[in-house]
Amino acid sequence: MTTSAHMRKCIDECLDCYRTCFGMAMNHCLESGGDHLAPSHFRLMIACSEICRTAAHFMLMNSAHHRHVCRECAEICSECAADCERIGGMEECVRACRACAESCRAMAA
Amino acid sequence: MTTSAHMRKCIDECLDCYRTCFGMAMNHCLESGGDHLAPSHFRLMIACSEICRTAAHFMLMNSAHHRHVCRECAEICSECAADCERIGGMEECVRACRACAESCRAMAA
Amino acid sequence: MTTSAHMRKCIDECLDCYRTCFGMAMNHCLESGGDHLAPSHFRLMIACSEICRTAAHFMLMNSAHHRHVCRECAEICSECAADCERIGGMEECVRACRACAESCRAMAA
Amino acid sequence: MTTSAHMRKCIDECLDCYRTCFGMAMNHCLESGGDHLAPSHFRLMIACSEICRTAAHFMLMNSAHHRHVCRECAEICSECAADCERIGGMEECVRACRACAESCRAMAA
Repeated sequence: MTTSAHMRKCIDECLDCYRTCFGMAMNHCLESGGDHLAPSHFRLMIACSEICRTAAHFMLMNSAHHRHVCRECAEICSECAADCERIGGMEECVRACRACAESCRAMAA
Repeated sequence: MTTSAHMRKCIDECLDCYRTCFGMAMNHCLESGGDHLAPSHFRLMIACSEICRTAAHFMLMNSAHHRHVCRECAEICSECAADCERIGGMEECVRACRACAESCRAMAA
Repeated sequence: MTTSAHMRKCIDECLDCYRTCFGMAMNHCLESGGDHLAPSHFRLMIACSEICRTAAHFMLMNSAHHRHVCRECAEICSECAADCERIGGMEECVRACRACAESCRAMAA
Repeated sequence: MTTSAHMRKCIDECLDCYRTCFGMAMNHCLESGGDHLAPSHFRLMIACSEICRTAAHFMLMNSAHHRHVCRECAEICSECAADCERIGGMEECVRACRACAESCRAMAA
């Protein structure tokens, strides 16, 4: 892929991870309760969705700082994937977070 | 389509219009200058991208207020489509804005 | 006050309401549980914080559409104030939402 | 100051820098043209306003990741302050960016 094809794919993954995490947090987690609403898990879901939204924004505007934001996005997505896997029943989030983390890590390199 | 399939499609259109308008504004318009950087046009592009981002957010969280935000999103997208068509060379924006306006109008009904 | 002094005050109120509602939701509500985490209440808190953030953004860029966004912001803030009052122990939110609703309603007129 | 008083001050500075940079970009820069609309300067202004908005969001939700976002925010604000100073006539931005960079740097430590 060319650089911009890689970036386009990374924007795709970020927006996909944003919508998956934010949608799951505000529906599945909020309605399931229990571990899903433990403050540390819920905050991580919202933090993950927000950094994905911001990383996409930086790439869309071609900011030179997108690498640093993507690096942080990869960190948070990896942590969120692990936490969702631990809790269980959140395979869609695990998959979206892992794909986004991988793309963002490549973008940050 | 079921209600939620309609909503999923509308979220798709909103995020697509967000990325198209914000990306075009911050690259094509900013680099082309002239009519593309007339304050009224540029503000409309940024306003359009922002309301699309917000409408997607409201639908993702299943807020009862998503209808009103979608109605406003449809208004701004229609106006943005017309302005992009008038200026020319922005077919991608015209298409994304029209598709989003149509989806949001149906969602607001 | 001049028009722009009114707008500056409304931006103040929107950003204050955003931070109060989002901060209370992600700390007080998330940690208190019970009624504070009922999906309808929690969604309203997040919806309120998001529309305040968006209304401020529209006013800051001087978009002609800020009136419509402010009208919707006033609606959601009023509803959020009433829900916070019903639940109790959220006086800070009630106050911020009411002040923001009043400013936004004047801006929308 | 206590930790939370420091954080509250940093949230103040971030939201102040967000509104100053975004407002200046979408009004003063957009209407002045010339150096103010050079893509590199304008993108930096928008990137700065966006990372400030995100840093405030992370602190408001008490995310453990706020330190990394604040560190990146400090970087972008410092760069933006220098660019605004170079161009001239943007003292308000220079001041807001410097204050925010200093607060965020302390928060990241």
